[in-house]
Amino acid sequence: STAAAAPTLDANDPFANEPARHPALRVMTQRPFNAETPTEILAETLTTPTDLHYTRNHLPVPQLDDKNYFVTIRQPNKPEIRMSLAYLKSKFRHYSVPVTLQCAGNRRREMAAVRTTKGTLWSTSAISTAVWTGVRLRDVLQEAGVEISEDLKCQDVSICHVHFNGHDRDPTNDHYGASIPIEKALDPLGDVLLAFEMNGEPLTRDHGFPIRAIVPGHIAARSVKWLDTIELAAGESPSFWQQHDYKTFSPSADNLAVIDDANVPALQECPVQSAICVPAQDQEVSASDEELTIKGYAYSGGGRSITRVDVSIDGGKTWQEARLKSFNQPCRRAWAWSLWEVTVPLPKDAAGSELNICCKAVDCAGNAQPDSAQGIWNVRGLLNNSWHH
Amino acid sequence: STAAAAPTLDANDPFANEPARHPALRVMTQRPFNAETPTEILAETLTTPTDLHYTRNHLPVPQLDDKNYFVTIRQPNKPEIRMSLAYLKSKFRHYSVPVTLQCAGNRRREMAAVRTTKGTLWSTSAISTAVWTGVRLRDVLQEAGVEISEDLKCQDVSICHVHFNGHDRDPTNDHYGASIPIEKALDPLGDVLLAFEMNGEPLTRDHGFPIRAIVPGHIAARSVKWLDTIELAAGESPSFWQQHDYKTFSPSADNLAVIDDANVPALQECPVQSAICVPAQDQEVSASDEELTIKGYAYSGGGRSITRVDVSIDGGKTWQEARLKSFNQPCRRAWAWSLWEVTVPLPKDAAGSELNICCKAVDCAGNAQPDSAQGIWNVRGLLNNSWHH
Ligand SMILES: [Mo]
Ligand SMILES: [Mo]
Repeated sequence: STAAAAPTLDANDPFANEPARHPALRVMTQRPFNAETPTEILAETLTTPTDLHYTRNHLPVPQLDDKNYFVTIRQPNKPEIRMSLAYLKSKFRHYSVPVTLQCAGNRRREMAAVRTTKGTLWSTSAISTAVWTGVRLRDVLQEAGVEISEDLKCQDVSICHVHFNGHDRDPTNDHYGASIPIEKALDPLGDVLLAFEMNGEPLTRDHGFPIRAIVPGHIAARSVKWLDTIELAAGESPSFWQQHDYKTFSPSADNLAVIDDANVPALQECPVQSAICVPAQDQEVSASDEELTIKGYAYSGGGRSITRVDVSIDGGKTWQEARLKSFNQPCRRAWAWSLWEVTVPLPKDAAGSELNICCKAVDCAGNAQPDSAQGIWNVRGLLNNSWHH
Repeated sequence: STAAAAPTLDANDPFANEPARHPALRVMTQRPFNAETPTEILAETLTTPTDLHYTRNHLPVPQLDDKNYFVTIRQPNKPEIRMSLAYLKSKFRHYSVPVTLQCAGNRRREMAAVRTTKGTLWSTSAISTAVWTGVRLRDVLQEAGVEISEDLKCQDVSICHVHFNGHDRDPTNDHYGASIPIEKALDPLGDVLLAFEMNGEPLTRDHGFPIRAIVPGHIAARSVKWLDTIELAAGESPSFWQQHDYKTFSPSADNLAVIDDANVPALQECPVQSAICVPAQDQEVSASDEELTIKGYAYSGGGRSITRVDVSIDGGKTWQEARLKSFNQPCRRAWAWSLWEVTVPLPKDAAGSELNICCKAVDCAGNAQPDSAQGIWNVRGLLNNSWHH
């Protein structure tokens, strides 16, 4: 079910060794490879098939040998520690956690329709769910000598962030990197994994083979693939993506050349989100149908569960509550989306007219989606969680 | 600075012994006493003066003797424990935490303008901030024999909720009660207090004298005043307010008589919120002024900090970022609001015309406020966090 890799023109091409990919993926960019899951299958199963999981690569996919693979751990005032993949797998308890990953740029296309934004014009399907298996970062760090205090700091209270560096490199040989707050990394309820399996199989190359970070509840950019080093530090990752890319600004700050982002916090948790998957945009509904089944997903970051999804076929004048299907995850550890479905009666006079179907979700913190993308518009086109029409 | 208590007509009147109150409070209902802070002073100081802190009582204020006061702790399969107030104060470490309390009905008036709702028509000032001093519920429960596991459960994993029962009673002698999830109660980063001081002084009668629960980040209804008993249980509090009152429904569910709320989750954390305090609604701005200073508050529940407030004077067409003033609280323990202020140039042709001033905030999870109250309308008028105009 996978197509051959795209032919390459040049052996020195950093993209010469990209993996084969499923032909049904909706490709946004080939180099680096960015592709959405086909929307129509997204709401069918709580777990997205691995080869149809959306893919967001920042750089070429590295070729890595899992037989001779080490993860390096660095912390202030201590010698560097290297743990082999085999050691990681054998030493620590394994956890399997259903986690939804969502690109912070999911639904940028709709935001860009308000005003031009930077970045890949993702539709609604830069989001997928897999069961990730791995060891807990918390356990690994404890083994590396980190003493975890009751308030989720470590012995060196000046350590505030955990950096993840990938093996993927840009033309200047700089690697992809990102960081998360130390409290998330050390939280026993945070479920941050070093994952080596996705849906019960070894990771595929596109999803971080042989090992990646999984940071549930955060934008997927923090779940660094092809994990090379883990570094405990006072500040955030110095990488371009942490410092500059994944940040949002006021709607009136529309000139990236003059924005001072030094004091703008880097995005971490995702806001409440939902989208319609079925029927597809512009799909024709038979005039003789008396009812219509609508399906989609809803998700909130930070482990917050979805408590309600409302669906309208008249653009938000009247609403009907959808049925939710979810993994059995407790409220503050709801790392995976809920799928939803609702069957609505169609107005008898609907033939030939257009239905304005829309949805909106509420999470267990009472957060609701903004009505429109106007007020949350930002020049990077990030975190569009407006009502989906 | 406090007026005499309202004269009572009848010595058997349960409201015969209400405390004296500051005359500047904006009274919504006298029995039970519900009153807002004057909006114009709300954004002046990070800590609201105690006698101007908004007050939301569900029942008459009980008269309690702090010299002979006990808190009772009940848990399954263990004898009841009674701890005297003196013991609580002397046995456990004291913590002082700035916490914003917000009535879940704050800004109901605006929601009711969309369609009629149940409940007190609070304007924007059913919210205030105090520094609360007390002991940690976590410490008290540990002393009571609760063993806290790594995942914030206790030895009896069927215990999922902590009930707080108040001394305030209704005409049938039933008390006010509410509950919170056990994970919040036991979280070392959750900062749930049994508080006996407010802004450095003993609690006033209106705010829970001699001791109350403070549940930071949650709707204020969970911070039970006049604390009588604490109960660990499998289910939520059976009280009317937990089971029925503080719940939201779909906008189309507008008939309380037919709503089945049994499976609707009780509200806990607050969503992201903001409001303008200065200038006041309908306040005239001098046509000769070249600029206008606008002030307000912004707050998010669950310890989430406010990362940005945008202010517009043209109804949301253009925005300017406000300066934030906050307590020094870390991101996931930002229990208090941020105050904000922005000075905007006034259009030269503004004389005689109306400014449409509005504000909206973003929290550290990327959650934004809904544009309007329409989509979040619910028959109980709860959690109105739409853009404030
Ligand atoms: Mo992303
Ligand atoms: Mo309330």
